[in-house]
Amino acid sequence: MSKQIFKEKIAQTVDILKEKDIDMWLTFVRESSINHDAAMDMVVGNNSTWEAAFIINKDGDTTAIVGDMEEENFVKAGLYKNITGYLKSIREPLQEYLKKKNPEKIAINFSKTSVLADGLTHGMFLKLLDHLKGTGFENKLTGAEEIISALRGRKSVTELSIMKEAVDETLKIFDEATNFIKPGVSEIEVAEHIKKITFDKGFELGWEETHCPAVFAGPNPSGPHMGPSDKKIQKGTLVNMDFGIMYKGYCSDLQRTWYVLNDGEEKPPEPVQKGFEIIRDSIQKVAKALKPGVKGVDMDAIARNYIIENGYPEYAHGLGHQVGKTVHDGVAGLFPSWERYGNAPFMELEENQVFTIEPRLPVEGYGVSTLEEEVYLTKEGCEFISTPQLGLILINTK
Amino acid sequence: MSKQIFKEKIAQTVDILKEKDIDMWLTFVRESSINHDAAMDMVVGNNSTWEAAFIINKDGDTTAIVGDMEEENFVKAGLYKNITGYLKSIREPLQEYLKKKNPEKIAINFSKTSVLADGLTHGMFLKLLDHLKGTGFENKLTGAEEIISALRGRKSVTELSIMKEAVDETLKIFDEATNFIKPGVSEIEVAEHIKKITFDKGFELGWEETHCPAVFAGPNPSGPHMGPSDKKIQKGTLVNMDFGIMYKGYCSDLQRTWYVLNDGEEKPPEPVQKGFEIIRDSIQKVAKALKPGVKGVDMDAIARNYIIENGYPEYAHGLGHQVGKTVHDGVAGLFPSWERYGNAPFMELEENQVFTIEPRLPVEGYGVSTLEEEVYLTKEGCEFISTPQLGLILINTK
Repeated sequence: MSKQIFKEKIAQTVDILKEKDIDMWLTFVRESSINHDAAMDMVVGNNSTWEAAFIINKDGDTTAIVGDMEEENFVKAGLYKNITGYLKSIREPLQEYLKKKNPEKIAINFSKTSVLADGLTHGMFLKLLDHLKGTGFENKLTGAEEIISALRGRKSVTELSIMKEAVDETLKIFDEATNFIKPGVSEIEVAEHIKKITFDKGFELGWEETHCPAVFAGPNPSGPHMGPSDKKIQKGTLVNMDFGIMYKGYCSDLQRTWYVLNDGEEKPPEPVQKGFEIIRDSIQKVAKALKPGVKGVDMDAIARNYIIENGYPEYAHGLGHQVGKTVHDGVAGLFPSWERYGNAPFMELEENQVFTIEPRLPVEGYGVSTLEEEVYLTKEGCEFISTPQLGLILINTK
Repeated sequence: MSKQIFKEKIAQTVDILKEKDIDMWLTFVRESSINHDAAMDMVVGNNSTWEAAFIINKDGDTTAIVGDMEEENFVKAGLYKNITGYLKSIREPLQEYLKKKNPEKIAINFSKTSVLADGLTHGMFLKLLDHLKGTGFENKLTGAEEIISALRGRKSVTELSIMKEAVDETLKIFDEATNFIKPGVSEIEVAEHIKKITFDKGFELGWEETHCPAVFAGPNPSGPHMGPSDKKIQKGTLVNMDFGIMYKGYCSDLQRTWYVLNDGEEKPPEPVQKGFEIIRDSIQKVAKALKPGVKGVDMDAIARNYIIENGYPEYAHGLGHQVGKTVHDGVAGLFPSWERYGNAPFMELEENQVFTIEPRLPVEGYGVSTLEEEVYLTKEGCEFISTPQLGLILINTK
């Protein structure tokens, strides 16, 4: 990520702290190359070996307290106004700084809902309590979930423009898949081909190589998040691919569905066509309803109910997630009210958040119908970042 | 890491649980590609998107409770005897499993001392308490530090043999530095040359590229952990390099010191020679004392005091750390009793642990004298893994 974006995000943080009325946001880390707090990718940029505190205040002051061996690194980075080095323990400079600023509310990085707002380990939480013991500040700690949620979700103009480029590049790679898919080719062969094109273009994969891309050749494909197998593509079946890239520090995440025409077929059989249209239309229904202020749980219900009403089983996952520096980004999501999603389905959605919409349904005997599009929220609705897939991509083997 | 090593480490865990009399070790994670618990690299291998529990018991039973979308991945991995999938919440299968096993003591991954034993985030700790509420098991939780310390520290025969190969390969790359270092070449040029050789050989860097290798051209070099600069190597000064590779999943970490002879010099000036010998001899003194049962704090004191007695300032860091899958590995270390090292200096050292020994001292007007060797503890002492540097490597520019 460029220094410019870090500066934008730190400035944005100050505005968010004002809006949420939180005096101070404290990111407290050690050996962050081993146990990495995702907040550092938004407002720090460099890892820290020794215990370090990265502090952004509502009043605009920014201070980093770091091991003195690393002081020069952070001075060079130039993101924090004050850099304080320490040798034996961070306790004294940290206490001193807090006494000077005297915050009423200090946000730290823990969250039951979101991994992205939960970078503080339990051991480091206990260490922080030790450091603050007796100062009174140990009673002023609160979770930084709403800060991080806003900061990661509200994409800047620069961020949105990079994310659009990422999606455009990804769709070009999907076109290469269309040229490659044919009967007899295995899921793994498709995946290897796509990876090679991605690396040749100088991009990284959007997520772990074991299932990026994930390729599903129906019927009876593996579940989502499974890696490709040596199963071969057959005539008269559906093929899907879930794939994204990492581009200039931001991810894309898209899915497309192909149908391989059988001997003598001019078009897909009716159940295949219907299964596709239900998915396509459920996405359009959600996109019409998506706007700032609505809740993810209601968006998920629109697609989920539409699919159930049409006689298909509901998908065994959420409808969509935010995308950003990580492929599952932000906190709020288009999720059902299942316990494992915590508070994320119930948060009001905001302008400039980027979401995937990715419903799925099985087409008995043919495979799976699934699409994944990316949209961002505008002031009054949403816009597609990806050009939506409106018809099945047909593989003609005549 | 090969499946074989994971199996070795899981089997070793069962022995450690018996030795420490802990019934169960529970690694509790979510979205582990974003917030990664280092324990997974020892006993799991695959990441998990949904909340997951990886459980190893003193009685030898191993069970993973994972999101059902990911169940097949973990079945395929074949490391855990039982794999249980869940859809909406991990709570029920987790409670059910605990009731069946009824452990008296459950170790979870938090530690004030070590990042490697501190993979559980504070938010996940709170979630775990929620999941266990009312079962009584929430009162049976303890830190897994001693399990993880033993597991990471006690290298298996396979691990030791890989680590020896890693050091051998690294020393060959240091020889290439000897051929490259000469007056007028910058720190960055040396670093780029070394990185190119490393990548050409198909290895990865041992730590972050910004300071791997770290190259220091005296006099007045930057502190340790700083990246190389455009400072040029001069005649009549010391040059040091701190460098390691990642080889078959294990790291190396070594330092060497060169002296660039000045016009008319046949050998280094007396202060340079003395500074080198003090460092070299301090390492030998530590190696003679190192054996299972001693404490790191006493090992650090041997080198630190020897350097101070000889009229040099003490080094501003620990004497040495463990090495393994990460460059700073294990929990126990050869550290002074500074607060930031927590309990790590006071743990008894064990057979088959691998340590660096890396004292440092300034040689006024010439630069820094520093060496870093790797040793492993035998039943009764220690053996060098690296061939120790016994004399300054002289760069002759005549």
